[in-house]
Amino acid sequence: MGKTIGIGLLGLGTVGAGVLKIIETSEGRNPLVSNLEVMRVAVRDISKKRSINISPEKLTTEPKEVIDDPEVQIVVEVMGGIEPARSLILRAINSGKSVVTANKAVIARHGDEIAKAANSAGVYVLIEAAVGGGIPIIEPLKQSLGGNRIKKVSGIINGTTNYILTRIAKEGANYKNVLKDAQDLGYAEADPAADVEGLDAADKIAILSGLAFGGVIKREEITTKGINKLEEIDVKYANRLGYGVKLLAIAERVEQLKERNQSLPLALWVEPTLISNDHPLAGVNGVNNAILVEGEPIGEVMFYGPGAGSGPTASAVVADILNIAGIKINNKGEATSLDPLLSAASWRECHLVNQKDIIQKTYLRVITNDSPGVIGAIGSIFGKNHVSIESIVQFDASEKGAEIVIITHKVKRGQIEKSLNQIKGLSDVLQIASQLGCL
Amino acid sequence: MGKTIGIGLLGLGTVGAGVLKIIETSEGRNPLVSNLEVMRVAVRDISKKRSINISPEKLTTEPKEVIDDPEVQIVVEVMGGIEPARSLILRAINSGKSVVTANKAVIARHGDEIAKAANSAGVYVLIEAAVGGGIPIIEPLKQSLGGNRIKKVSGIINGTTNYILTRIAKEGANYKNVLKDAQDLGYAEADPAADVEGLDAADKIAILSGLAFGGVIKREEITTKGINKLEEIDVKYANRLGYGVKLLAIAERVEQLKERNQSLPLALWVEPTLISNDHPLAGVNGVNNAILVEGEPIGEVMFYGPGAGSGPTASAVVADILNIAGIKINNKGEATSLDPLLSAASWRECHLVNQKDIIQKTYLRVITNDSPGVIGAIGSIFGKNHVSIESIVQFDASEKGAEIVIITHKVKRGQIEKSLNQIKGLSDVLQIASQLGCL
Repeated sequence: MGKTIGIGLLGLGTVGAGVLKIIETSEGRNPLVSNLEVMRVAVRDISKKRSINISPEKLTTEPKEVIDDPEVQIVVEVMGGIEPARSLILRAINSGKSVVTANKAVIARHGDEIAKAANSAGVYVLIEAAVGGGIPIIEPLKQSLGGNRIKKVSGIINGTTNYILTRIAKEGANYKNVLKDAQDLGYAEADPAADVEGLDAADKIAILSGLAFGGVIKREEITTKGINKLEEIDVKYANRLGYGVKLLAIAERVEQLKERNQSLPLALWVEPTLISNDHPLAGVNGVNNAILVEGEPIGEVMFYGPGAGSGPTASAVVADILNIAGIKINNKGEATSLDPLLSAASWRECHLVNQKDIIQKTYLRVITNDSPGVIGAIGSIFGKNHVSIESIVQFDASEKGAEIVIITHKVKRGQIEKSLNQIKGLSDVLQIASQLGCL
Repeated sequence: MGKTIGIGLLGLGTVGAGVLKIIETSEGRNPLVSNLEVMRVAVRDISKKRSINISPEKLTTEPKEVIDDPEVQIVVEVMGGIEPARSLILRAINSGKSVVTANKAVIARHGDEIAKAANSAGVYVLIEAAVGGGIPIIEPLKQSLGGNRIKKVSGIINGTTNYILTRIAKEGANYKNVLKDAQDLGYAEADPAADVEGLDAADKIAILSGLAFGGVIKREEITTKGINKLEEIDVKYANRLGYGVKLLAIAERVEQLKERNQSLPLALWVEPTLISNDHPLAGVNGVNNAILVEGEPIGEVMFYGPGAGSGPTASAVVADILNIAGIKINNKGEATSLDPLLSAASWRECHLVNQKDIIQKTYLRVITNDSPGVIGAIGSIFGKNHVSIESIVQFDASEKGAEIVIITHKVKRGQIEKSLNQIKGLSDVLQIASQLGCL
């Protein structure tokens, strides 16, 4: 097939080693893989024992040496974290080298800066591995769904929390015990905050919605609630009502625009959410991820697969390397203009609406005295605030009190908040115990 | 964004009208859509009343005029059928114009001829709409999974039969009545053979496996069995055993190669297949399609969505148009070398194994006398032929006889056939009533 394409790796952890392994065993893969050669690898500790074969003279502890190596044409950043990853990506871009990265944290926060630098340098920064592990989702959003007006992107995009929730659902296991298991198995970090508080999912939905809606998303404005405060009793009640509970990330356009060139209002949030058992996302278990995209005229499509792990994530990184190799470098080495689909520059203004304006079904659990009038009183308050109710069920009435579970129809969060403030004032109401989303 | 890209449509039926509608309403879609302009459209009847606005002078009954029009840069073939579609596609290629087609019948039979012509002319022939309606599957196979060694591609890829099977499963409806409904709703053709006999699914699995495994597939060698002979009693028994029945198309590599450059042995077949209720494909209902791809190192990914219809199919056609517009024509109008991923030339030899060497789980229904020794006799014959049994259940014993349902473990079809020939010879066996696949 012709000439070698030089790859430089920044990082040789789980994903980096997976990428190296694919490139070193090219037989039976797309023939373009055999053109790839890893020229230089930045690691933290050169003398560390590794399961993968790499000649020691390719290793360096200085990432800049990898970027500046004239034999390196594509820089693969798989070290993670914000800095020095961001600076190194920008250095590669400014050296005229395309970049492949699996770093959702950097892209969610500095994606706009990086994309602008890449476009003005005429290079690509591809990020398939940043969301959904091995699942092809970034490229379909950029290249296969461009004819559509996207209405909604939603999904299960954090494997760690989905593993925990699956075990709680299937075994009635305790959150803290399962988290400990997940840490022992390497699915969760020693500090699990990014996963269980929903921050990782928020990073990823920021990236997906930026591509789906064509605008820059302010990561820090995303309303985020993790599973760390989820109580098992709510999972149990949800099950009794025919629902499972998943950590969902959701992005949707809020209304039709009245004028062209107006900024597009989007609602973005991450939240433990009830999903009815016949919904396509209900069967997504363990560390699997799934992303639903709804558009006009396509309707609804879903992408499903392993959301993490060395092999799947390396598969996504190599996909990006091949794309750059195929269209950019293979092209006689001459500079050509960027494919606007693949470079995916933002093309309109978007903004996030206030969280009070997020419209959704809501699950509520209220603890009350076991008094005959309390359901009526709660129902009246919702009625006055124009919150229509899908179901209201009283569980476990006892001397201690009763638990009342309410599922609303789709209304604004602001209306729910206002209602809850009034409900709290009822003498028979002891506590608003839980509030979750519901699909 | 710059200059107009001229589109010529061959056909203005459901899909053609959908494509025109997307292009005419570009606001809110990828900005590249606004660069597209439909210049000329070939139709059968110019005077026909249409729901879509198109100026009459763009219409012609002569497809060649569309192809030869100097303002047409990309030819979109959405007329269907083998001829004249094949000749028109080749004419466009030979005029140096890239082609987008939704025509699975032509690609499954003449894909190799067309791909060779396109590569030597330096143009693209893209086929996203040929399989899976709106679901992005062709492009992910070509561009996003190239780092993998694909092991298996399987799925539900015929919406008509899935609609029929879903209604039979949910309502216990009768095959002939549901087929009539499907025809009335426009889901099935007046002559339903291509759908219900599995021929359409065979076309599509030929295309998918050609891309997944990198070789030319001989369409006529695919073992094909439709749902037209499926009996409702087998759906009923399958349900009792915890399975649903779907028409599956399956392609898998049969063994590891001993030498490089050896022809890759593949098993390809289409067959009504039992799927256990917790399998990801089990929840795919109605006219939806889903394709599972299994590879190393990615594991298993699934693509799910609407398998047919004007909007979804038009979405896929426009995706292909945008891809060509993005990398080929947008590139300063200069000829550049083809992206090897997107052009997807075949890169190795593949061949289909004899159907006797297909390895699968099998569901069998045998009608026998209600005699105490018959299960033992059947079991012994399977044992002698090294067919191991997962379950053997006797249903509906009565004076008329008994129905024995057997599900085997994975064995070669040849072993099943040999066993059945011997079982037929047992004096208590009245009939081998059904043989289906099982996942």
